[in-house]
Amino acid sequence: MRGYTSDKDGYLTRLRRIEGQIRGPQRMVENDEYCIDVLTQIAAATKALQSVSLGLMDEHLKHCVAEAIAVGGDTADAKVREASEAIARLVRS
Amino acid sequence: MRGYTSDKDGYLTRLRRIEGQIRGPQRMVENDEYCIDVLTQIAAATKALQSVSLGLMDEHLKHCVAEAIAVGGDTADAKVREASEAIARLVRS
Amino acid sequence: MRGYTSDKDGYLTRLRRIEGQIRGPQRMVENDEYCIDVLTQIAAATKALQSVSLGLMDEHLKHCVAEAIAVGGDTADAKVREASEAIARLVRS
Amino acid sequence: MRGYTSDKDGYLTRLRRIEGQIRGPQRMVENDEYCIDVLTQIAAATKALQSVSLGLMDEHLKHCVAEAIAVGGDTADAKVREASEAIARLVRS
Repeated sequence: MRGYTSDKDGYLTRLRRIEGQIRGPQRMVENDEYCIDVLTQIAAATKALQSVSLGLMDEHLKHCVAEAIAVGGDTADAKVREASEAIARLVRS
Repeated sequence: MRGYTSDKDGYLTRLRRIEGQIRGPQRMVENDEYCIDVLTQIAAATKALQSVSLGLMDEHLKHCVAEAIAVGGDTADAKVREASEAIARLVRS
Repeated sequence: MRGYTSDKDGYLTRLRRIEGQIRGPQRMVENDEYCIDVLTQIAAATKALQSVSLGLMDEHLKHCVAEAIAVGGDTADAKVREASEAIARLVRS
Repeated sequence: MRGYTSDKDGYLTRLRRIEGQIRGPQRMVENDEYCIDVLTQIAAATKALQSVSLGLMDEHLKHCVAEAIAVGGDTADAKVREASEAIARLVRS
């Protein structure tokens, strides 16, 4: 069981759609399409990835971190620290 | 008691330093300094603000959210949802 | 001729590699891997996309915008405005 | 003359307002206000700084970079490279 398990299919669908959003710019570069149009497509894919990350983080806090805190002890502290580090990577990426 | 209480002075010092980092670009614009130099100063202030936000969020998860989860019930769910929304604002700002 | 033409193959290679970086998280979610590990992979893909965008923007300024400015007139203004809007999308994505 | 000269007063006003937006969170931390409320204020200041940066970059491209390109030669190349590096700092901050 993972934080995202209850919506596993939803996340898979979103990640597959993003894979397609990355193939778009490939075709565009192959066909020498206009730089700004390529950039617009990449920005859309980046936003979609970010949105998936925010969803996964929300599920992670709601399930994995919450369970670790309910149990308590060192594991709880480690889980919160790990989540904070992942949030920092998310903000800086 | 807030999540940041144990390092309240540290956060105040950092926020005051950032206030100074915002006065820098003001003086630079007043003195007609070079755009790129102004931008570099603003980028440093933005990074410092982001770093304060990540610190506050870490303390918030470690203390406020953890306590709400330990108590359990609706409050716990609401706290996690609220934290996720703040993380999203942080990522998108 | 586009801004990226002289390194078209390089951009195609990078975009194909990023496509692979998106398939990674798909497999990980299918196999119920740990949320934080999925997030780390997605953050790497996001950073790689951002880096491609910065490269394309650099080429665009160096070639397309520079040519429009060399010719001058309304086209030059429109090109700069279009580039600024794309930079804003990049910063906000 | 700088890129931002024609709207120098506007930029000064915006930077002064942001300085106030940084004093807000200081008062809030002094008064032990709620973490999430502090974070919301900091996110607003960060967005405002980003918006000033995007404005300055737009003026810089429109004026400083455009003039360098109109003159041509090594200076033009150097200006575009410098602008691209500043855009990268903006995207990553």
